[in-house]
Amino acid sequence: MDFRTEHDTMGEIKVPAEKYWGAQTQRSLQNFTIGGDKARMPIEVIRAFAVLKKAAALTNAELGVLSEEKARLIAQVCDEITDGKLDDQFPLVIWQTGSGTQSNMNVNEVVANRAHVLSGGILNDLQKSVHPNDDVNKSQSSNDTFPTAMSIAAYKAVHEWVFPMVRKLRDSLAKKSEEFKDIVKIGRTHTMDATPLTLGMEFSAYVAQLDYALKAIKHTLPHVAELALGGTAVGTGLNTPKGYSEKVAEKIAKLTGLPFLTAPNKFEALATKDSMVELHGALKQLAVSLMKIGNDIRFLGSGPRSGIGEIILPANEPGSSIMPGKVNPTQCEALTMVCAQVMGNDVAVSVAGSNGHFQLNVFKPVIIHNVLTSARILADSCDSFEKNCVVNIQANPERINSQLENSLMLVTALNTHIGYENAAKIAKKAYNENTTLREAAISLGLLTDEQFDKWVVPSKMIGPVEK
Amino acid sequence: MDFRTEHDTMGEIKVPAEKYWGAQTQRSLQNFTIGGDKARMPIEVIRAFAVLKKAAALTNAELGVLSEEKARLIAQVCDEITDGKLDDQFPLVIWQTGSGTQSNMNVNEVVANRAHVLSGGILNDLQKSVHPNDDVNKSQSSNDTFPTAMSIAAYKAVHEWVFPMVRKLRDSLAKKSEEFKDIVKIGRTHTMDATPLTLGMEFSAYVAQLDYALKAIKHTLPHVAELALGGTAVGTGLNTPKGYSEKVAEKIAKLTGLPFLTAPNKFEALATKDSMVELHGALKQLAVSLMKIGNDIRFLGSGPRSGIGEIILPANEPGSSIMPGKVNPTQCEALTMVCAQVMGNDVAVSVAGSNGHFQLNVFKPVIIHNVLTSARILADSCDSFEKNCVVNIQANPERINSQLENSLMLVTALNTHIGYENAAKIAKKAYNENTTLREAAISLGLLTDEQFDKWVVPSKMIGPVEK
Amino acid sequence: MDFRTEHDTMGEIKVPAEKYWGAQTQRSLQNFTIGGDKARMPIEVIRAFAVLKKAAALTNAELGVLSEEKARLIAQVCDEITDGKLDDQFPLVIWQTGSGTQSNMNVNEVVANRAHVLSGGILNDLQKSVHPNDDVNKSQSSNDTFPTAMSIAAYKAVHEWVFPMVRKLRDSLAKKSEEFKDIVKIGRTHTMDATPLTLGMEFSAYVAQLDYALKAIKHTLPHVAELALGGTAVGTGLNTPKGYSEKVAEKIAKLTGLPFLTAPNKFEALATKDSMVELHGALKQLAVSLMKIGNDIRFLGSGPRSGIGEIILPANEPGSSIMPGKVNPTQCEALTMVCAQVMGNDVAVSVAGSNGHFQLNVFKPVIIHNVLTSARILADSCDSFEKNCVVNIQANPERINSQLENSLMLVTALNTHIGYENAAKIAKKAYNENTTLREAAISLGLLTDEQFDKWVVPSKMIGPVEK
Amino acid sequence: MDFRTEHDTMGEIKVPAEKYWGAQTQRSLQNFTIGGDKARMPIEVIRAFAVLKKAAALTNAELGVLSEEKARLIAQVCDEITDGKLDDQFPLVIWQTGSGTQSNMNVNEVVANRAHVLSGGILNDLQKSVHPNDDVNKSQSSNDTFPTAMSIAAYKAVHEWVFPMVRKLRDSLAKKSEEFKDIVKIGRTHTMDATPLTLGMEFSAYVAQLDYALKAIKHTLPHVAELALGGTAVGTGLNTPKGYSEKVAEKIAKLTGLPFLTAPNKFEALATKDSMVELHGALKQLAVSLMKIGNDIRFLGSGPRSGIGEIILPANEPGSSIMPGKVNPTQCEALTMVCAQVMGNDVAVSVAGSNGHFQLNVFKPVIIHNVLTSARILADSCDSFEKNCVVNIQANPERINSQLENSLMLVTALNTHIGYENAAKIAKKAYNENTTLREAAISLGLLTDEQFDKWVVPSKMIGPVEK
Repeated sequence: MDFRTEHDTMGEIKVPAEKYWGAQTQRSLQNFTIGGDKARMPIEVIRAFAVLKKAAALTNAELGVLSEEKARLIAQVCDEITDGKLDDQFPLVIWQTGSGTQSNMNVNEVVANRAHVLSGGILNDLQKSVHPNDDVNKSQSSNDTFPTAMSIAAYKAVHEWVFPMVRKLRDSLAKKSEEFKDIVKIGRTHTMDATPLTLGMEFSAYVAQLDYALKAIKHTLPHVAELALGGTAVGTGLNTPKGYSEKVAEKIAKLTGLPFLTAPNKFEALATKDSMVELHGALKQLAVSLMKIGNDIRFLGSGPRSGIGEIILPANEPGSSIMPGKVNPTQCEALTMVCAQVMGNDVAVSVAGSNGHFQLNVFKPVIIHNVLTSARILADSCDSFEKNCVVNIQANPERINSQLENSLMLVTALNTHIGYENAAKIAKKAYNENTTLREAAISLGLLTDEQFDKWVVPSKMIGPVEK
Repeated sequence: MDFRTEHDTMGEIKVPAEKYWGAQTQRSLQNFTIGGDKARMPIEVIRAFAVLKKAAALTNAELGVLSEEKARLIAQVCDEITDGKLDDQFPLVIWQTGSGTQSNMNVNEVVANRAHVLSGGILNDLQKSVHPNDDVNKSQSSNDTFPTAMSIAAYKAVHEWVFPMVRKLRDSLAKKSEEFKDIVKIGRTHTMDATPLTLGMEFSAYVAQLDYALKAIKHTLPHVAELALGGTAVGTGLNTPKGYSEKVAEKIAKLTGLPFLTAPNKFEALATKDSMVELHGALKQLAVSLMKIGNDIRFLGSGPRSGIGEIILPANEPGSSIMPGKVNPTQCEALTMVCAQVMGNDVAVSVAGSNGHFQLNVFKPVIIHNVLTSARILADSCDSFEKNCVVNIQANPERINSQLENSLMLVTALNTHIGYENAAKIAKKAYNENTTLREAAISLGLLTDEQFDKWVVPSKMIGPVEK
Repeated sequence: MDFRTEHDTMGEIKVPAEKYWGAQTQRSLQNFTIGGDKARMPIEVIRAFAVLKKAAALTNAELGVLSEEKARLIAQVCDEITDGKLDDQFPLVIWQTGSGTQSNMNVNEVVANRAHVLSGGILNDLQKSVHPNDDVNKSQSSNDTFPTAMSIAAYKAVHEWVFPMVRKLRDSLAKKSEEFKDIVKIGRTHTMDATPLTLGMEFSAYVAQLDYALKAIKHTLPHVAELALGGTAVGTGLNTPKGYSEKVAEKIAKLTGLPFLTAPNKFEALATKDSMVELHGALKQLAVSLMKIGNDIRFLGSGPRSGIGEIILPANEPGSSIMPGKVNPTQCEALTMVCAQVMGNDVAVSVAGSNGHFQLNVFKPVIIHNVLTSARILADSCDSFEKNCVVNIQANPERINSQLENSLMLVTALNTHIGYENAAKIAKKAYNENTTLREAAISLGLLTDEQFDKWVVPSKMIGPVEK
Repeated sequence: MDFRTEHDTMGEIKVPAEKYWGAQTQRSLQNFTIGGDKARMPIEVIRAFAVLKKAAALTNAELGVLSEEKARLIAQVCDEITDGKLDDQFPLVIWQTGSGTQSNMNVNEVVANRAHVLSGGILNDLQKSVHPNDDVNKSQSSNDTFPTAMSIAAYKAVHEWVFPMVRKLRDSLAKKSEEFKDIVKIGRTHTMDATPLTLGMEFSAYVAQLDYALKAIKHTLPHVAELALGGTAVGTGLNTPKGYSEKVAEKIAKLTGLPFLTAPNKFEALATKDSMVELHGALKQLAVSLMKIGNDIRFLGSGPRSGIGEIILPANEPGSSIMPGKVNPTQCEALTMVCAQVMGNDVAVSVAGSNGHFQLNVFKPVIIHNVLTSARILADSCDSFEKNCVVNIQANPERINSQLENSLMLVTALNTHIGYENAAKIAKKAYNENTTLREAAISLGLLTDEQFDKWVVPSKMIGPVEK
């Protein structure tokens, strides 16, 4: 491999000749060999950096602290990053400095060097026309750019991944709820037979859960949308021109089409990542909800012969390498594994969020890593679960009816007629003698046949008493 | 001890003669000897039950399914419970059935038996004038009453404990932020010396954190305020009269003065406790914020001679049993221990919330136990931290000034004048030779004395550049 | 209430006249009003303190740094504490200073004052014959006594609560495994029907889980058994006589009958609570195992008519306040709620354990609170689950047999005869046409009736192939 | 792209022409588009599969249920996988079926097809000479192979990554402890000045922590080493020849050189992943320990001028993009971020481990993903921390001495001479009047100059009292 020499304030270092990155990126590559390829800083963070570096350059030019020409060059490289043309220029891992300084410098160096080349220079030039710190990083610090990139990347992840996929799943469950609205079935509480409801009602709870989760996530976005940019090193805005922070936030809002604002308190924005703790808390709530939904659906579909079997899940693949013909609720499994991960990630984010000191939280890369991972796997698994499972769920009316008719808990309808204690006698007798409620009721002399017919009607047991 | 005989649908059982509770409470007492006294069902849940039992009785009477006389008696006992007169009648523990059925029956039994006595009966009567299931529990099930009691208790805990105490702490920190607004001090990032800010700015971040936490908690309340009552066994409202659920929620709102509403989807309200997952998620965010605040304040006050020592914490007690004269940041310690607990409780709530099956989540007692515990210890520790620490925090100006003057990071002000790399040379030289920035700058020939005086002014380094 | 005046190095303070505690206890009572009665320092910690204070006094006397008379008096009071005679003298809460200094001083003060009274003095005497710091706390610091008390209390909790109760449950499950060893039933993987096993085998997995959990807990005890005592303030042993730490550990071992040793590295023993993190990690493993067991047993017993229903759980109480005759797996619910709590407590302990700084971890009270709570509720719930559920579990052979006979997964036995793909054809045909495997196999021409009889024998499908 | 047609029991499907995988892999690829490239099943799991597939084939041949020729071919492909030659043949993600069936089939298909090609066939042949289920998967099920692969991969990760790197860090810290053994410094408890110890003692606690963590991890390995293989579908060993499970475990032990054994209870081995819960619990303990170490070292090195500054950390890179000359404890930051992640991963593993049902835990891929990730990032970060930080830590004797001399807590040495209360008076006077202990002691008339010289000697305060 060919190398060229780059330098920073610590001295010279060899860098792969064809790479745009500079000395600090190279040092980080060498000093932080942790976690391998899978641990790379998420590309969404890099692209968020491209947005903010462009916005900063344009704002700096407007405010007269950077030349128009440099700003134009910087913006051009940022667009290339956004377009994915420079993806292989960002080799650093999450497990680096906790402020993300090295990824900020990676972006600064790539932008500066690429800008230099775009302006006609060559990478080997000792003096570059654009300086990573003095130009690309102008009016900025890692301490305000990295959290800003986090905000942009996280907001987009929610907006582009989580919301559409959760909504899609929600709508599909709502459709099923409607489709199943007349199928009366036995209810189950404590995993034991209970009074009836419709299968549609059962599914309506899942819809409601996702509606609440969506609302909860939405509530966290205003905090996420507050940008740290303009705080520079410790939140004071040292080395920024007056008016910069508002202007640069506006630019970012325009570039992304999302409602970003400058954070009213930059000290909070740098010293904590509470906004991410807040967002991930809501993602965790979604995971808790999805765990319930995934569990329910696999149990409702359990069987085919020795389980509950009230619904039939689509058979997407052979279920077993040894048991021929087996079909498994694999989409539920992928979904619930994702939920377990997100519940764990939430603790990682909380521990990281609680550990900042003084003017800077230095657990930022691990926080954004978890936020983006959770957002991605939640969105993807909702999508997968929807299209490969929910949409093709069928009811199994034979099973549903036979279980409904056998149920001892229909006895509850008698409470208001003969009292709880008499009703209990009937249920117990039927259970112990393995007979029907009707037989038990009549043999106990508590009801006539006609009364049983009139009072014990499952389809009338799915709502309040009509007068 | 004297006993009387009580019965339920399982048969007879001996109960302490002077207690109002009945057979089912007694069975639970015997079947669930888990955790001892500390594990008792929180009294807040019992009192919330009193509110809802009263509301249910009055609504039942209004809708014509319960006699006015019984309703009056039931309401009267509920008022006694609310007033704390019957606290010793509720001996059951959290670690019981997961629907809280036994605590619901404990309340039903105590209300029925006490009402019987109030109406002139005696506890030994075999037939009581009010029946625990048919009267006190009318139009109800454990499955909708227990979550309703959770909603009431949790909402009140936030409203009466968390909000006032967090606000009090927030206001006290805000006062300190104002008091310290002119004290310029060194900033710290990565625990290392950084550019200056004021001590007031530093404290303003804590205020902002608490404002965000308060907002986050507030966002969760509408979900908490949705009452399950009216869903009865599985969410359908079986055995309730038409219009009951809306009316009973209205009554509860009136009795408590809080904005409770009937849950639009009762299936979600019974089958999940996502509202509590949501609320506790926000309490956990508060804990994460307080952990940062508590940590910062103890480190800022560390010393007195070999630490940071920029602030002085009040000496409330001798700090050490062996080291005479030691003063420790004990309030920070209590606070941060509380935060660790709340971070753990959040996992307990999430695991419990994710584990419901079908029409009923059966981890309800452990969920409300954690929600109430977290609310209580957060509120109490904010109160304690405020009045025993924050309010008496003093700045230590001598220390602050000497550290500020020595700081090498004032060099950052030079970036815009001589560039990042030259500035770095100055800082490194001063560090290596243990001199001042001024000496290093001048000896490097990068600045004149006058320039240094003009450019390196800490008090001008705490905001954007004024033109 | 009557008061007397006590003093400490901070000055005078009023103390309830009839209480033995002194100034520092009173200060803590007033400065830490957090969490109420339920938050009191566990009495197990206080009693562990009594053991170590006695051991220290005796050792000090032996080594000539405390008079025999004072040692005798101190030992006498410690015995009273151990016997529970002074339980109401320890009012402090967990949420105090993170080193537990105030509970150490509470013990020191009560011992000193009570010793003074035992020696003929009265509480109002200004000069007491035994000094809380100079005598009772001699050769000690809160920093080494509190962790020592933690070690003693935690070891005893495991030894006296956890081990016997987990073993009892384990043995009861083993008995059931033996009892059910010939009951062939359908297996379930992915909640779907699978190849058969015996009910005894199914239960044997629970036995194995508990065996592993017991072993895992046992492995942590040597670390727990290492006592910090002798490290005093920072681990160096300042102010202790030579030989003290070994001797005092020996005494504690003798007094408790447990294998305590002096910690080889006192700096680790004070600065961290890794031994508790280690122990609680194993308790958490037990919780994870019990969650599986509790879930399985409730699902195996689900029904009675529309669930799996292979086992019948004892009916200990009426299950529902609205559904007459309902029986619920309430013991499973208490057990699994406990597991959720312990999983949360583990995070509290980890967060607390990770947050120590320099020579002292100051999250000790919250750590021991969680360790003792988890130990207690795990032990109690194992006991309760065993005696109120497991011991009375019955198999439901009719249900088991009918489900076994219907199972399509018996087809797996044919893999080695006709290959996986042909076997799959049979299973799928039977499923789609709702027929038996036999019918499908024969109609596909893949098997004769005789071959089916010979090859598909559930009772031969529960082990490797015999030649 | 070119495709060929493959089939499984569900029918035909197109597969990329040049890939060895078959129908089931392709279905999984299409049905589980979750998480992208970073979510790929860890290659360590695939390679562990290669080991077990080879062992199974050889054992099957030995026991006469597979031809020698097929066994030879299978073994040959497995060796290719082990050698990394087929890495691009395993495209599936973690978020698939929870039993890992699809990854098992991915291996089965690649081995079968590649074996077919090695034996002279071509991929397009409809009939292949080796069948993925009947030959490669012979005597196996996903349900016993996947957990076996987990055991192998996890054991190797601990053995090859965690142990050497933690030991390396431990040894490096031990060397520093030795190097610093004579440097007396001030201790700190509650972050406040305390009695002295040596810097070597301080570091010895870190060494002890890692020793305990290593021991804890070691204790978990016997459980991890128990292989599920031989249990097949539900743990019974259906479709395996007698003696198979012991023999195949022996082979795996031989192939890996690690002490693998067949699990004594296969039902536990399939239905739970408690062994992984146990292992990860110990990894979490390591994370808790490293969090303390990382935090301490960054605080001890804080400054350079306004922090503690007792040690000097190596400057590996420019610390700030805006503050010139800044050096940050970046290795501590990477390390502690890793710890936060591992603490979160532990919850993911626990939730996943607690959620198995009946004969199969279906959260296996998420469990092994977390175990391997934690093992990798812990090992890598220990390595990085060691070589890029610990090895070059220097003491800062000037700072250490000046802080030591100023310390008020040296007063503790006077307890045994003048009593705790008099000593406290001295410390408080010195603090309040900002003087030295000596001045305060003498002005209070409690000591002579000579006594002070004799009794207050820091270097004699770092151990028990010598007679």
